[in-house]
Parts: sequence; C-alpha cells; structure tokens
Amino acid sequence: MVAATSFEFKEYVASRREIVENRLREYLSGSEPEVLWESMRYSVLGGGKRLRALLCLASADALNPDALELAVPCACAIEMVHAMSLIHDDLPALDNDDLRRGRPTNHKVFGEALALLAGDALLVLASETVLEQTPADVGRSVVIEVALELARAAGAAGMVGGQVEDMAFTGLAKRPQELVTGAMLESMHRRKTGALIRFSTWSGARLAGADESRLRAFARFGEVVGLAFQITDDLLDVTGDAKVLGKTPGKDEASDKATWVRLHGVDQSRAKLADLESEGKALLSSSGLLSGATSMLGSLLEYAIHRLS
Amino acid sequence: MVAATSFEFKEYVASRREIVENRLREYLSGSEPEVLWESMRYSVLGGGKRLRALLCLASADALNPDALELAVPCACAIEMVHAMSLIHDDLPALDNDDLRRGRPTNHKVFGEALALLAGDALLVLASETVLEQTPADVGRSVVIEVALELARAAGAAGMVGGQVEDMAFTGLAKRPQELVTGAMLESMHRRKTGALIRFSTWSGARLAGADESRLRAFARFGEVVGLAFQITDDLLDVTGDAKVLGKTPGKDEASDKATWVRLHGVDQSRAKLADLESEGKALLSSSGLLSGATSMLGSLLEYAIHRLS
Repeated sequence: MVAATSFEFKEYVASRREIVENRLREYLSGSEPEVLWESMRYSVLGGGKRLRALLCLASADALNPDALELAVPCACAIEMVHAMSLIHDDLPALDNDDLRRGRPTNHKVFGEALALLAGDALLVLASETVLEQTPADVGRSVVIEVALELARAAGAAGMVGGQVEDMAFTGLAKRPQELVTGAMLESMHRRKTGALIRFSTWSGARLAGADESRLRAFARFGEVVGLAFQITDDLLDVTGDAKVLGKTPGKDEASDKATWVRLHGVDQSRAKLADLESEGKALLSSSGLLSGATSMLGSLLEYAIHRLS
Repeated sequence: MVAATSFEFKEYVASRREIVENRLREYLSGSEPEVLWESMRYSVLGGGKRLRALLCLASADALNPDALELAVPCACAIEMVHAMSLIHDDLPALDNDDLRRGRPTNHKVFGEALALLAGDALLVLASETVLEQTPADVGRSVVIEVALELARAAGAAGMVGGQVEDMAFTGLAKRPQELVTGAMLESMHRRKTGALIRFSTWSGARLAGADESRLRAFARFGEVVGLAFQITDDLLDVTGDAKVLGKTPGKDEASDKATWVRLHGVDQSRAKLADLESEGKALLSSSGLLSGATSMLGSLLEYAIHRLS
C-alpha cells in the first residue's frame, strides 16, 4: 500500500469535497416550509470534514474510476445522517451543546422544536436521496440493499443504538463509571460512529460493483478507520490542542465520560492506533487493487489517525 | 358503493388489526440496546386504532384478495412512522403532552433523551421494514417506489413539514392567529396528517398492482379520509365527549390552536364533511371494482367521519 503524496491527497480531497458540497446544496434546495429547510441547510452545509463522504467516494474510485457518480448520492445521504445525529445529539435532552464547529448549534439558532424536526426530516431525506438519486446504471436490488444497510447503520443496531449506549456510559442513566468495560466501550463506538463509517466504505464499494470478498475487506477497512478516528479523538482530548481537535480539549474528563484513553491509558491507546494503521494498510494491500487506486483510502486512514490534512 | 354491515366491518377490522399487531410485535422484537427497544415497543404496541394500517390493507384487499400479505410490512411501517410522530410531538420542545391514549407519554416513562432516540430509530425501522420485509413477489422497482413515497410522506414535504407549519399556527413562532387562512390550515393538515393517510391507501393499491388511474383514485380517497378525519377531530373537540375523542375536549380552544371549526364554524365544517363523504363514496363507485370489494374502505371512511366503530 502506498499513501498518496500530501499534494495529491489535498487535491483529491478538495475535488471530492466540491462535488459533495455542490450536490448537497442541490438536494437541500427545498423551500417549503422555508424555515425547516433553512434549519436543515444550516447544519448540513455548515462545514465539516466530510470524512464519511470522502471514504465512500474513495472506495468507489478505488474499485472503478467510472463509478464515482454512482456513489455521490449515497455519499451525500451519509452526510445528512451524520448531520442529523449531531443536531439531535446537541439538544438539551442529550449533550446540551451550544457550539458545534465554532458556530451556535442548530437549536440555539432555530429553537429546540425546529432542530428536532430538521433532524427527522434529514433522516428521511437521506433515504429519499439514495432511493431517488442513485443513477439507473445501478441495479434496483443493489439500490435496495444500499438503502437497507444505510437504515441499519443509522438505526437501533447502529448509530442511534450507540447513542443510547453512550448515554448509559456518561451517567445519564446513573450507571457507575466503574462498570464500563473495554468491550462495552468498543461496542458503543462500533455503533455510535463506527456503523456509519463502515457503511461509507462498504456502500462505495457496493455501488462500484465490488465482489463479496472485496466488500468484506472494504467494510472491515471502514471499521478500522472508524475505531482509529474515535481513539484519536479521545487522545486529542487529553493531549491535543483545540485547533486540531475542533473543540475544547478536556471535555471528556470534565463530563466524566468513558473514553478509550481513560480506560486503557495513553500508551495502550497509541499502540492500538498503530495496530489499526497496520491492519488498514494490510487490508488495502491484500485487496488485489493497484496501490495507486487505494492510495487515497490509505491517506484517509492516515488522516483519521494523524489529523495532518 | 356499499358500506359493509356493522358486523362484517367489526370482524374485518378485528382480523386485520390482529395481523398488524402480531407482525409489529415481530418487527419490534429487537433487544439491543434493550431500553431503546422497550421505548419503541411502548409507543408502537401501546394500542391505537391502526386506521392507517387498515386503510393500507383494505386498499390492497379491494384490488386483489391475494395481495394482503404484500402490503402487511408497509402497513406496519406506516404505524411506526405514525407512532414516532406522536413521540416527538409529545416532547416538551413541541406539544409537551404528559398523556397519550390514557397512558403516560414516552418521554414521561423513558425520559426525553430516549424518547427522542426511539423516534429516530422508528423512523429508520419503518424504511427498513418496507425494504427488507416486502415479499419478493413485489417487483424491486415497486419496492423502491413505495419506500420513496413513504419517505416523502414522512419528510419535509409531508408529515414533518406539516408539524413545522402547525407550530407556526399555534403561536410557537409568534404568528398572530388572525393570519392563518383556510388555505394555510388545509395545507398544514394535508401535510401533517394527510400525507401519511394518503400514502396508506396509495401504497396498498400500488403493492396490489393497481393501474395508474386506480392509483390516482386511491390516493385521492386517502386525502379525503385524511381531511375528513381531521375535521371530525376538530368538531369533536368542540362538541364531543372525551370517550369518543380519546382525549380531553376543549384543548384546541385552550391552546389557541387554529382549527377547521374555529375558522369555518360548526355548520360549515359539517357541510364539508358531507361533501367529503360523497366524494369518497363516488371515488369508490367509479373505481370499477365490485362494491363488495370496496365496502371496507367505504366503512373506514364512515368511521373516520362518524367514529361509530
């Protein structure tokens, strides 16, 4: 596996982000009721790394350079689901956050009721986007499979289920911190952030026509990136500065949150990251794809771990 | 058009409700995380008329007695979407209701955070149910079409958009009551409750293989039932007793809510109901289906208006 040069990677990321931003603007151009769409646009079009969309598009690109367009609607749908999870997570009933990416959170601008409903509308729009916008070149049963897996990644078995587990771990359900084990924490992360990241690489590969064995490899690669991203976040909360992290460090400690680093310590967390980096690179190498084709995925894995983009 | 006898109708409703309840129990038998599924089950399996599921199944039945099974997953998905809308509507950020169908609302039992997340999970499970459980006899492009229309009925163009309009009408957005016109009120109802009821009859017909002209007639029939149901609700709030209404009368007046009856008066509302009843019956008569086949739909329309079941 080779990673792309820093220059190539930046060019690639910029070009793919532009495609995603333009298409998201198009999908979110609705106007009735105006205030609802404004609230939806505020959160989806308000910046963000687009890591999930990039993973989806880079997976499709890796398998077939002509498959990009087939995966764009799905990549946008993933960003909608991600954005809605942040809107609902930020609500007073959950994390009660006032700031997100340096801007007031959705409910601070639009009120709690609209934030709640904008999240609901985005969840539905994501499914609509996959079902309606995926080009006709993609077989109808593949479209169904992708929409179904997106629902699974978002729902009780995935992201939403993980949010519930996370609540239990942060004292909201009065569960003593001491009872949270590494296995429980990993299960929570696998659902809360991992399921959608896993879906990102899997769906890109599926839409590009990957066979069963490559689909498994791409899905596992997504799991690796997801877990690496989470551990890096936890590490940065302890060791990083606000600029790299994009939020205030020390928040996990202050909110008595179970994190990878609190459970395993900094050294073991760094060792786990190194293992994940090796596993991810091995998955790409053994995919049978040209190393040039998978170089952007390799760079996205490195980005998840080193945040150097 | 003939309506079924009261006895036939009761038997029919009981048999279809049993199918729906059993299948909903099956679809909602998940257990991880346990408390999330409990919260989902609490609201979906906690009673209710199942009007929307009955409309979907009766539409399928009317077109083809063998099509029932094809429509059952969709009928259940509709009830999931309906239940999630009630959970989110009842939250303090929206209507702040403590009671629903005589029981504490979801957030009163499980807390606001879980109620919010259970609603999200149900919205996703509805889409999953249509995509995964619709029998293979149904063409894959029809499954996509039905899942897509369900998303539209639930989202910004439908139910969620209607909830936002309703908020604007009840003073939450500080809009003066006087500015609410009949057209605005009808648009709100068409979205908030109408879109899902319209989808119920349309999807039953679509899954049973209806042609374009019958599809249009069934969709319009659903619109008629939806509006009639809403006007009846508004009338009962003024004239009815709590037993028929299933909730405390006089609540609309107390909450300064724009309703059909407040805008048009009792007499005009009754006249509109009579018009809708005629239009609905005419749609069934002109469908070219045997009157026996559409009798249950006729009875459901009468039920929506007279609440005599």
